[in-house]
Amino acid sequence: MATADTKKKVDPSLVSQMAQKVNEIADSNETVKGMEYFYDFTKMIYTSRADEITKEKEEGKKVIGSFCNFVPDELVFAAGAIPIRHCAGFQDTILPAEEILPRNFCPLIKSALGFFIMGDPLYEQADVVVVPTTCDGKKKFCEIIGEEKSTWVMEVPHTTETSQARELWLKEIKLLKKNLEKLTGNRITSKSLRKAIELTNKKRSLIRRLYEVRKKDSPPIWGRDALLVTSISHFDNLNRWIEKTEELCSELEAKETGVCPETAPRIMLTGSPVFMPTWKVPMLIEDSGGIIVTDDICTGSKGFWDPIEVPHWTMEDMLLSIADRYLMNTCACFTPNTARLIRLQGFVEDFNVQGVFYHILQACHIYGVEARRIESALKADGIPMLTIETDYSQEDVEQIRTRVEAFLEMISARRKGQTV
Amino acid sequence: MATADTKKKVDPSLVSQMAQKVNEIADSNETVKGMEYFYDFTKMIYTSRADEITKEKEEGKKVIGSFCNFVPDELVFAAGAIPIRHCAGFQDTILPAEEILPRNFCPLIKSALGFFIMGDPLYEQADVVVVPTTCDGKKKFCEIIGEEKSTWVMEVPHTTETSQARELWLKEIKLLKKNLEKLTGNRITSKSLRKAIELTNKKRSLIRRLYEVRKKDSPPIWGRDALLVTSISHFDNLNRWIEKTEELCSELEAKETGVCPETAPRIMLTGSPVFMPTWKVPMLIEDSGGIIVTDDICTGSKGFWDPIEVPHWTMEDMLLSIADRYLMNTCACFTPNTARLIRLQGFVEDFNVQGVFYHILQACHIYGVEARRIESALKADGIPMLTIETDYSQEDVEQIRTRVEAFLEMISARRKGQTV
Repeated sequence: MATADTKKKVDPSLVSQMAQKVNEIADSNETVKGMEYFYDFTKMIYTSRADEITKEKEEGKKVIGSFCNFVPDELVFAAGAIPIRHCAGFQDTILPAEEILPRNFCPLIKSALGFFIMGDPLYEQADVVVVPTTCDGKKKFCEIIGEEKSTWVMEVPHTTETSQARELWLKEIKLLKKNLEKLTGNRITSKSLRKAIELTNKKRSLIRRLYEVRKKDSPPIWGRDALLVTSISHFDNLNRWIEKTEELCSELEAKETGVCPETAPRIMLTGSPVFMPTWKVPMLIEDSGGIIVTDDICTGSKGFWDPIEVPHWTMEDMLLSIADRYLMNTCACFTPNTARLIRLQGFVEDFNVQGVFYHILQACHIYGVEARRIESALKADGIPMLTIETDYSQEDVEQIRTRVEAFLEMISARRKGQTV
Repeated sequence: MATADTKKKVDPSLVSQMAQKVNEIADSNETVKGMEYFYDFTKMIYTSRADEITKEKEEGKKVIGSFCNFVPDELVFAAGAIPIRHCAGFQDTILPAEEILPRNFCPLIKSALGFFIMGDPLYEQADVVVVPTTCDGKKKFCEIIGEEKSTWVMEVPHTTETSQARELWLKEIKLLKKNLEKLTGNRITSKSLRKAIELTNKKRSLIRRLYEVRKKDSPPIWGRDALLVTSISHFDNLNRWIEKTEELCSELEAKETGVCPETAPRIMLTGSPVFMPTWKVPMLIEDSGGIIVTDDICTGSKGFWDPIEVPHWTMEDMLLSIADRYLMNTCACFTPNTARLIRLQGFVEDFNVQGVFYHILQACHIYGVEARRIESALKADGIPMLTIETDYSQEDVEQIRTRVEAFLEMISARRKGQTV
């Protein structure tokens, strides 16, 4: 797959880019002490965190790479392995990927492939990469990484509403369990699986706690920071992430001042994933005077809003609960995706959302098509929506800024009872 | 879905466009008497053929619209209904669709949606539209037509190689049977299903017969004509299509002269579908001196190359055979799609193919990603491949012509033992 020219380590430049981006986020911030850990962690994903994982690998642990929010971390933890995420947000890894993938293609996938080509340490550490069939891009791209890497494809059904779809998905979950046991040599027991479910449920409840404080008139944390925290949960040691996020939440709950005026337009971010370090969209919204109070995106609340509810702690019940829970996803890969609209409408009410920013990554058909339905339903509820299709480049920043500013002004004017 | 402005009948302009396109194909042709029927039929799809269907509907027959080659005609026929295809190839129906779908989207789907918006008679006649989840575009677009039309989604698994995928697909086939019986009020019996399988198997064997004559050094039929014949099988009364194609094949088998010099580069067409009336690609190849001797596209051999083989004529065996047969499709929706490469390599040998034209419709991710693998495998066999991404507009015709001409010259030069 890789040519002699492109096969080189990207670490030094990626690390410095990551640090620069994080500094941009942090520089423009009110002081939230609990965020320091997350800024620092982000800067060190490809160095200190990678080293930690290397050490655990040397002790015999397996590393399970994945894409999307459909590969249950619970099974990975229960098998004594380490989950890591390969979705990527770097513009600089896109160029080598465009020698292999079409140019008119999802930047997240191109960036991820670029990582693979350029020898990202997290990719090198992965013993297997699990790719769910959430979209055409992911489904086909895994053939390419499969040329050099062990890959497992998980079939995500198009619906959550038929018995055959649910049966198929449960079989996929059971197959993953079997494959993980074979790869790691560890049997997934009722005890280890229960422990793993309890651990990820702690993460889920913490994410709700982090979002809860953002319901205030002036939230104590920027949306771009909250998104960093949830994004990092896919890379960090989960126990440490829980500890640090608990500290952050306690600080935020005690904090008396918000990060913005109470008049700042309250925005919900939804659509295609936003992945580090391309924080273009959240930065533009908040630099223009808005505040992201909630979201429905993969790196935010999407995968971890609802707990895994297990009626009885038997293996069969746990697997069924995991399968059901992972299908309770508002991903646009489902059709009809009514769960997403219900989620968005609930968030509008709960978070007093005044406007919705709909983010479409270039050539992302599933979120692209769904935008119209969502916009029309929100409009009926009196909530305006701004749809932007973009990629990881900086070329369209000023153009998006103009549209975002106009959108926020319109929301402010509406609130003041003016017509525009 | 439709606005007051866009809700109008397109027939007059579509009919004249179709006629004009057909005249272009026919004008540049050697005389093949048996083609007249197919030219005439194409001109009258939206008039005479639509009237025929209306008449049958008045007599109580149901019309089952569909996309792709995954909705078994056999079940439709056995339920006493009429299958029609909604995939579309008109540039002029794209504009109204772009008010609803992203611009950066498959032209086939945009054109189909434009038809729906503009009141195409074949769409109006459909009692239900069956949409298989072959690609993200089709999967999500069916939510839009579902706002006005009854739609059934069929889940196509991503693989043909696991038992859970085959089980799911068999369940989808059985559900379709049940739904068709309910809609039509006709029970699908072993007798009616066997008759339907025998009918479509006749079509399948005729398609092989039509392709067989193209193995000659100078084929007696242009590839663009053969593609018209196979395309029409999705719209015509199948018994009549069989009769007319038998006549055509007999004529071609007796014909002593070919349509082109024996030195014309022998091309295989593959990739995204080519749909009437946008015959841009086959016309460009053959106007530039090449001859399309075979293909692996949806409107050509793809859906109907292999017969449905039924070991015992029981209902269960027939359904299983149908399910298995429809998964024996070389569609790029599958991963890994090894069947496609095997098919292409077989065709290269059987049809003495000298070059492959790989057609990608704009933003068609599944065929787009697969191009690289196919090209590299063919290259190893000494077969060059030209990949073109295009849409239904005429804007890129001259640009493509230049590339096609250079490609054909290179093939000719190779054959003459020259180096280029």
